[in-house]
Amino acid sequence: MSKKITKIGVLTSGGDAPGMNAAIRAVVRACSYYHLECVGVYRGYQGLIEGDFEKLDARSVRNVINRGGTFLKSTRSLEFKTKEGRKKAHDQLSEAGVDALVVIGGDGTFTGGVFFSDEFNFPIVGIPATIDNDIHGTDYTLGYDTALNTVVEAIDKIRDTASSHNRLFLVEVMGRDAGDIALNSGIGAGAEEILIPEESAGVERMLESLKKSKASGKTSSIIVVAEGERSGKNIFQLADFIHEQDESYDIRVSVLGHIQRGGSPSCFDRVLASKLGVGAVEAVIDGKTKVMIGIHHQNVVTVPLETAIKGEAKVDKELRRVADITSV
Amino acid sequence: MSKKITKIGVLTSGGDAPGMNAAIRAVVRACSYYHLECVGVYRGYQGLIEGDFEKLDARSVRNVINRGGTFLKSTRSLEFKTKEGRKKAHDQLSEAGVDALVVIGGDGTFTGGVFFSDEFNFPIVGIPATIDNDIHGTDYTLGYDTALNTVVEAIDKIRDTASSHNRLFLVEVMGRDAGDIALNSGIGAGAEEILIPEESAGVERMLESLKKSKASGKTSSIIVVAEGERSGKNIFQLADFIHEQDESYDIRVSVLGHIQRGGSPSCFDRVLASKLGVGAVEAVIDGKTKVMIGIHHQNVVTVPLETAIKGEAKVDKELRRVADITSV
Amino acid sequence: MSKKITKIGVLTSGGDAPGMNAAIRAVVRACSYYHLECVGVYRGYQGLIEGDFEKLDARSVRNVINRGGTFLKSTRSLEFKTKEGRKKAHDQLSEAGVDALVVIGGDGTFTGGVFFSDEFNFPIVGIPATIDNDIHGTDYTLGYDTALNTVVEAIDKIRDTASSHNRLFLVEVMGRDAGDIALNSGIGAGAEEILIPEESAGVERMLESLKKSKASGKTSSIIVVAEGERSGKNIFQLADFIHEQDESYDIRVSVLGHIQRGGSPSCFDRVLASKLGVGAVEAVIDGKTKVMIGIHHQNVVTVPLETAIKGEAKVDKELRRVADITSV
Amino acid sequence: MSKKITKIGVLTSGGDAPGMNAAIRAVVRACSYYHLECVGVYRGYQGLIEGDFEKLDARSVRNVINRGGTFLKSTRSLEFKTKEGRKKAHDQLSEAGVDALVVIGGDGTFTGGVFFSDEFNFPIVGIPATIDNDIHGTDYTLGYDTALNTVVEAIDKIRDTASSHNRLFLVEVMGRDAGDIALNSGIGAGAEEILIPEESAGVERMLESLKKSKASGKTSSIIVVAEGERSGKNIFQLADFIHEQDESYDIRVSVLGHIQRGGSPSCFDRVLASKLGVGAVEAVIDGKTKVMIGIHHQNVVTVPLETAIKGEAKVDKELRRVADITSV
Repeated sequence: MSKKITKIGVLTSGGDAPGMNAAIRAVVRACSYYHLECVGVYRGYQGLIEGDFEKLDARSVRNVINRGGTFLKSTRSLEFKTKEGRKKAHDQLSEAGVDALVVIGGDGTFTGGVFFSDEFNFPIVGIPATIDNDIHGTDYTLGYDTALNTVVEAIDKIRDTASSHNRLFLVEVMGRDAGDIALNSGIGAGAEEILIPEESAGVERMLESLKKSKASGKTSSIIVVAEGERSGKNIFQLADFIHEQDESYDIRVSVLGHIQRGGSPSCFDRVLASKLGVGAVEAVIDGKTKVMIGIHHQNVVTVPLETAIKGEAKVDKELRRVADITSV
Repeated sequence: MSKKITKIGVLTSGGDAPGMNAAIRAVVRACSYYHLECVGVYRGYQGLIEGDFEKLDARSVRNVINRGGTFLKSTRSLEFKTKEGRKKAHDQLSEAGVDALVVIGGDGTFTGGVFFSDEFNFPIVGIPATIDNDIHGTDYTLGYDTALNTVVEAIDKIRDTASSHNRLFLVEVMGRDAGDIALNSGIGAGAEEILIPEESAGVERMLESLKKSKASGKTSSIIVVAEGERSGKNIFQLADFIHEQDESYDIRVSVLGHIQRGGSPSCFDRVLASKLGVGAVEAVIDGKTKVMIGIHHQNVVTVPLETAIKGEAKVDKELRRVADITSV
Repeated sequence: MSKKITKIGVLTSGGDAPGMNAAIRAVVRACSYYHLECVGVYRGYQGLIEGDFEKLDARSVRNVINRGGTFLKSTRSLEFKTKEGRKKAHDQLSEAGVDALVVIGGDGTFTGGVFFSDEFNFPIVGIPATIDNDIHGTDYTLGYDTALNTVVEAIDKIRDTASSHNRLFLVEVMGRDAGDIALNSGIGAGAEEILIPEESAGVERMLESLKKSKASGKTSSIIVVAEGERSGKNIFQLADFIHEQDESYDIRVSVLGHIQRGGSPSCFDRVLASKLGVGAVEAVIDGKTKVMIGIHHQNVVTVPLETAIKGEAKVDKELRRVADITSV
Repeated sequence: MSKKITKIGVLTSGGDAPGMNAAIRAVVRACSYYHLECVGVYRGYQGLIEGDFEKLDARSVRNVINRGGTFLKSTRSLEFKTKEGRKKAHDQLSEAGVDALVVIGGDGTFTGGVFFSDEFNFPIVGIPATIDNDIHGTDYTLGYDTALNTVVEAIDKIRDTASSHNRLFLVEVMGRDAGDIALNSGIGAGAEEILIPEESAGVERMLESLKKSKASGKTSSIIVVAEGERSGKNIFQLADFIHEQDESYDIRVSVLGHIQRGGSPSCFDRVLASKLGVGAVEAVIDGKTKVMIGIHHQNVVTVPLETAIKGEAKVDKELRRVADITSV
């Protein structure tokens, strides 16, 4: 039988994502609603080890819903990968009277959580937050929708220059293993071609596309390139390679980089964060553990953390088809 | 047996919504991909009657994906409500050799389309575009996601003043029959209370909320009010009413109005428009008629236009619950 | 001889404006740079009376430069208009050991400051912050540039709808006495006509303009109307009046309202706030009092507060001329 | 005696900048106002050579004021550097009956214009447009204010991550010779240190700053680096160099790149473009040639093109001082 829950801890870990603050807020507010105490843990698992805790109430999370990043901060903790580190973390939680943890983050965060939960039989519930949308069992992760808007707005700006100068731009977007950001932002920005990690023949496709575009009289083009694209070339080498094939291209490279992780969350991400935060607290109350709270077909769902971690990304074929047709 | 399709017309009708241009673009590009001709009809059904047509090819729709409004323009046509008007429209289509129509709009657009299709046995396929998200058979309509972001950004600005001055703001957002915009943007903006058309006891709830907020030490508040809210008071009367109950409130009213309809579409709306535009052309090719192309559980679906029109809005209870919990 | 300054108080008063936080930050940082103590006064002159003070150091103002509103909050204080109120305020300052005050605000703020300074021979330095840009002796007030961008972005959205529907929009912007916001945002948004408080023949001009526009084939128009416009009609009555003159206009009204006061400050306002904040502290150190720190011809200048208050707004004739020419 | 002007050509050349479209619009509208014909020249001086002209009237420039880039496009023309090329250009102008040229661009654009004007005694008036603000005789160039806002918004996003992770970010902004963008955006974004081309001891300063910051307990920092910074290291080498000095820094690099050139112009740039465009046409009418229309102390001024080209950038010492004080 599960212990009665009276105090919940919440932390953020891994790369930050827009919506993390909104999720923390929802966890805190839901605790307040259900008359539970809530403790914020600073700096992720490292703060857990060091007991860097602060009591949070409904007022503590005023005016954070619209802020990017995470006010609880995040670090990668090597110490938490050791048995001693986790032991210290558990001692800190016991001492503070925390009965369960809500961990907000991605893959690595959940892996750490599962390990810790198994070791100490401690209730852990996860909320998926990463701009890469590469977590299984949830249709969307926190931060993904915001990142897409950031990318599309950036490429809109770049297109002003591309059109004005009849140039070819290669734009690198985030996505080491998953092409979701590249594929969606590429369609959204009206890119002529999109290179993603899930496809190996990307460069040939691209050269073919460029040739066709040129023949049809297009004078400027945007190619969106996921950072994990598989040509074996980095984006600058790719630019050189295209130029070698056809010297008439006036090519520029833009690496969007870290702006993709920040910014005020979109309405979608704020609402999603609110749903998942409430769902996480209710899962804890219901005695669930080692689960992630996700969204599937617009419903809040509960998924084993192991499932969330294990999956393998695969390209959305329908989206790839739409990209091909609309970039004619 | 359905006639072979060689030329498709496309028009926008009803209130404009961000993403309409992206949808037109996708229709045009899909026609190009499938080697069909495409004809743009200006000013909706009125342009149909007047034969205000222009041939569109893949190049015609460059650099429109990021623009609000509709470059094909939109009007409300009284003439199309007459038999003579529709007859003229059909004659124009025959003369121009157009075999099918894709109509982009809402409720009224689809009703007109069904009527016309029945009368002349003319293939019509609809794409749902309205910021109100009040069309049945599709999880999202074009423009809705963008409008939510516009509202949330506006309320973020208003909150700066509300917090600085310890004021109560009533913010009116669009939604005559459906509370979707109010409910989602209210959660997203961290509103203390939300009044929607689907609930009748809104004002009592609100007064109760305000009383609680005050007791808990909150000094500023945002109330989001859908324009179709059912108190029988307009938003200025509502402000007076609250002031009568408790004179200590320093109340301000903001009616967001028409900014909610415009703006560059979000990535979500651009991708959705691309999917629906391609889907509409493929539905025409497949011989479908009197259907709407919608999105359900992330899949493109085909729904009878009659179904899309008939439905009745009902409040998303889970969302209302999340709103109540997170506004503690 | 002026007393040696060791502790400076800073407060915001009157309507909030973007850049107030950046100005507070600069005051605090400049105090730190010059090894002075700094005390934040909450809620303007009312907080002065109540002794609602907090010690601020360089770290207290991290991450506020980009936020709208004022974290020190602002209220209008009736009590400060009484001799007793001001006496209490002075007692609080004496008790806290505060030697001088930097007051950030507009007209009313400066008037109160002059009164207080005269009464108690207390050093007061002002920083002009109001979106209306109606303070004399400074080319720009804090918040004005940000408000212009907010207005122009809002009208860009409205124009999407205006163009799509061939409509005439009347857009009300702030400016009770000064037409600066209307004139600049009207030019910036490409408005067809602009009504400002400084001109009395605005409505006749406007009707003339509309007639010409129509003759030239323009199908949609934006009229920007300052709230202090002198026709004696409110904006809804103005819409009715135009409609009476020519029923063919499809007219809509949008009152931008409070969104104009909020939002993250523009780079211009952040830099201006930084300059003025530093200038204010240096003025205090130099023994100046009853002066405003302004910007004139890109230089930081010192202006007697009496001058800043007294002036009368007059329309920028060159700007009016440019508006007339570019709205052809 | 100067020839009577009846037809004016307008072109954009060099790197694109937000506000170019607004300037073209103002030139066209002013021509219309003064009953002159206006001819748009596509692709800068290359289009001049090729006679790539289009008649523009007031309606041609509707809905362009809010768009980044230049609809007349821009290229760098090698042919225009040859006598033959310029001869062809002059022949094209004669044939088209164009009496004078308004050229919108930067340094290189003006240099070409002076050469051409001298050679053929052809009236040329320049409008300064470049995000770098490196033209003499004008307080502001078109696009500069917009670029500052773009940079500051991007760094606001990066700071979300920097704060969440206690990291040090090096952010590269444009500015090969001039540090204006770096200095202003660095102050506006609250950067801890700013490296500019006009100063040689930047790296030592920076290391000193970082040491102090660390001692004072700062955990995250932003360093803004102008691309023309003089350490002799690129930004990635700079990051390595800092890491060698103190391995405890968790450093990330972000190169903002081409997003800085695009985007919808700020209200400031739109108004400035309107003033300069009108001023340019009036200068042509007044028989002026080889002059730039600039803005100085808020007045439109006329400056010999030679002066505009020749100057040498020098750092704004007051701004550097403010940066040092507010980054305490």
